Amino acid sequence: MFPDSINTLIAALGQLPGIGPRSAERIALHLVQASPDGVRALADAMVQARERTRFCDRCGALTDQSPCAICSDPRRDGTLLCVVERAVDLLRIEKTRAYRGRFHVLGGKISPLDGVEPKDLRIAALEQRLQAEPIQEIVLALGTDVEGDATSHYLAKRLARPGLKISRIAYGLPVGSGLEYADELTVSRALEGRREMHE
Amino acid sequence: MFPDSINTLIAALGQLPGIGPRSAERIALHLVQASPDGVRALADAMVQARERTRFCDRCGALTDQSPCAICSDPRRDGTLLCVVERAVDLLRIEKTRAYRGRFHVLGGKISPLDGVEPKDLRIAALEQRLQAEPIQEIVLALGTDVEGDATSHYLAKRLARPGLKISRIAYGLPVGSGLEYADELTVSRALEGRREMHE
Repeated sequence: MFPDSINTLIAALGQLPGIGPRSAERIALHLVQASPDGVRALADAMVQARERTRFCDRCGALTDQSPCAICSDPRRDGTLLCVVERAVDLLRIEKTRAYRGRFHVLGGKISPLDGVEPKDLRIAALEQRLQAEPIQEIVLALGTDVEGDATSHYLAKRLARPGLKISRIAYGLPVGSGLEYADELTVSRALEGRREMHE
Repeated sequence: MFPDSINTLIAALGQLPGIGPRSAERIALHLVQASPDGVRALADAMVQARERTRFCDRCGALTDQSPCAICSDPRRDGTLLCVVERAVDLLRIEKTRAYRGRFHVLGGKISPLDGVEPKDLRIAALEQRLQAEPIQEIVLALGTDVEGDATSHYLAKRLARPGLKISRIAYGLPVGSGLEYADELTVSRALEGRREMHE
């Protein structure tokens, strides 16, 4: 029913997160009737963002420079390190403006069913940072699902060192869910209510 | 908080219909972590679709050739002409597979408050088609809001000719709404239940 070029566009849009078939069609029909300059600007913005974005070598955050803006900001509290699963989770925490420490992105969580073992995560890099940086507290901000829980306990045990406090955000994070869908207040409260973990 | 290139992308995505700030962010973060080839393919699909899509000179449909596939399909019933507001509405009717006639896209509806007068719509072109084509029935498939209603009555009066039947789709179309949000069954029933209009 649609010209081929529109069908191709609908299929490509349908791959995006949260975009169902109906939304894809609606956006496609909007685009083919929008100003050509506007469409080209959007297309360019996509390609540019993808090409310029990389992961920070130190913390694993999404950035266009490495080390990233957070790692290289001297006003950040270098004694506090927040560990998150994915780069996206870091942004959720930044949005709360309730945290002034630095970050470490694990790159996932331990999940034997998905074949993700500790060695597949950035845990060795985290241990190196514990030696190189003046970190006094690690705040584990992983999801509260089974794997996130297991990963938190694994890390609490593996990272335990004399004089290092290991806490975990807790308050308000819905059980069985990840950070991605939590609102800013919930994440903010979860940070405030973090509790120290024991092996 | 985001690198500039991601902020630019989020702003551009937020201009799309049905995409709020949260969705725009989610899609942007997906894209900057997706395969570069996939992102480029999506960007190309947008630009290609926009460049290739035009309006059919005859009926006003979205097409990549003119006359469009519907206007040039000899299996279509040339005695039946369905009049819709926008090119998108035509696609809603095609989806029902309940209609085998041809189309005419008005390009809007009469709306004095928005400065849209009859001369701004493709009504003269519609009258030319009535002379050139073997049209026996016009099916008005405009929205059921005030302007759509007024436009239908205006057309019923202006297009009235001996031997020409003018009907209007009716059944099931929610009052105060346009074709864009109706499901296929509703549009299908509205077609079946069309009623002849009198001046």
